[in-house]
Amino acid sequence: MPALDNTPATATGHPLDAAIALAPIAEGKYRGHVAPSYANFIGPFGGILAAKLLQAVCLDDRRLGDPLALTVNFGGPVADGPFDIHCQPTRTNRSSQHWVMELRQGEDIPLTASAVFAERRDSWADTELQMPEVGGYADCTPLDTGGLPTWVKNYDMRIVSGGMSFLGPEPGPQDNSESILWVRDKPPRPLDFPGLAALSDVFFPRVFVRRPDFVPVGTVSLTTYFHADGEELARHGHDFLLARARGNRFHGGFFDHSGELWSEHGHLLATTHQVVYFKH
Amino acid sequence: MPALDNTPATATGHPLDAAIALAPIAEGKYRGHVAPSYANFIGPFGGILAAKLLQAVCLDDRRLGDPLALTVNFGGPVADGPFDIHCQPTRTNRSSQHWVMELRQGEDIPLTASAVFAERRDSWADTELQMPEVGGYADCTPLDTGGLPTWVKNYDMRIVSGGMSFLGPEPGPQDNSESILWVRDKPPRPLDFPGLAALSDVFFPRVFVRRPDFVPVGTVSLTTYFHADGEELARHGHDFLLARARGNRFHGGFFDHSGELWSEHGHLLATTHQVVYFKH
Repeated sequence: MPALDNTPATATGHPLDAAIALAPIAEGKYRGHVAPSYANFIGPFGGILAAKLLQAVCLDDRRLGDPLALTVNFGGPVADGPFDIHCQPTRTNRSSQHWVMELRQGEDIPLTASAVFAERRDSWADTELQMPEVGGYADCTPLDTGGLPTWVKNYDMRIVSGGMSFLGPEPGPQDNSESILWVRDKPPRPLDFPGLAALSDVFFPRVFVRRPDFVPVGTVSLTTYFHADGEELARHGHDFLLARARGNRFHGGFFDHSGELWSEHGHLLATTHQVVYFKH
Repeated sequence: MPALDNTPATATGHPLDAAIALAPIAEGKYRGHVAPSYANFIGPFGGILAAKLLQAVCLDDRRLGDPLALTVNFGGPVADGPFDIHCQPTRTNRSSQHWVMELRQGEDIPLTASAVFAERRDSWADTELQMPEVGGYADCTPLDTGGLPTWVKNYDMRIVSGGMSFLGPEPGPQDNSESILWVRDKPPRPLDFPGLAALSDVFFPRVFVRRPDFVPVGTVSLTTYFHADGEELARHGHDFLLARARGNRFHGGFFDHSGELWSEHGHLLATTHQVVYFKH
């Protein structure tokens, strides 16, 4: 039994729901529109594109289970206006299903993606990653979004450590790129898989934490593993998440980071990794 | 200018080269055969499948640059016998290129994959991940491959810490799943991108490090980011790599791990992540 509610997304008034709204055209084909509310410096916020691609599969009647893994490859900018998402199951097993997706604008394919959906079952369980020990979100100042791209205004971000170096409070080069922040949708929105997919790209580029200058950057490929099932997300509701990201290697005009998204109560909801282009 | 040698792979005598040999059928289509030398308990070793999918793009005349990111989704078992790999560039930019790949056997598509290739250029550089401080490979005993799947015999593995719990030397449940090992191809083989892609799946399932019992497991999705360019791999030659993997969360019949592959001299050659099914 699919665990997700299969009701087509409609604009509920929340900017994220409006941004991921998709109209079915045919089996495995959806039409959407770029949402100005999630604009980045060039094209849309990568996280909202990841959410749209995942949402297409969530809406598909052929879908089995909940998201387990999502990879999105950002080939080129998504232009303002309409787009089509094509999604296709390539393999359906008893309790897991593999999908490939594309976002198309005319002949252009700026994004490709793949996802694994699965039905989880009870098993031995443990979390080895350690949640950062930090103060609560109520003790942190919300990020001033003035001068930042439009999409940031849809999140309540409270940076615990590792802000962008040119925003201070410690401007100048930093020794490491670890960032820890409390974050949730603004206005608050009950957490679901598309919302969590969008949050998995909420980290500012690690090179902006390390280096004092603003340079062109762009996520090239993003992979997120979902550790929570639908029930755990429902229990999370609209609480804050604790997010951490750390750069691994910066080299040859690219870097990668690994990130974590925790519930306030210490549940690891997702791990997420990406490789990013930077000009320097 | 492509940095890779575009010569078709042929069986040079090394088992890995024989296993990834592909015969071109048409543009973006290759025929290969499952290599018994890389057999796992069920079907082939996932790493050799990742290497085959990457090799298809490496052989393609349309290819631009070197591998940067590779995601392989393992939908179902690859049967003994022949298979076809289809690969298609979806987007070519000035210095990067996006590909999608499939491995087909008749109507069945057991594997889908995507890759980003790129031309690297000089940039500010740093490695934030810390290489494990361990003794040299000469001080470690090669793993006894008796009783292990066939593919393991193609690697010289020297476990520093975190072996499989049922193999000892500390049988029984462990507190964490971190493994550190020295590893290279056996016989030694100069490192290249397909070889590194295969090595990125060389880690035993983390649940076997944590738990004392043997249970069915299978990688569901694997993502590797390549940090070295072709010159760095050429300099590495056939030296040992230091490999580390750590489990993140085990829950609902799945777990994920994050891994690192280092040169002996402290260069981070690749980071790699996977989500794995386990029955428990």
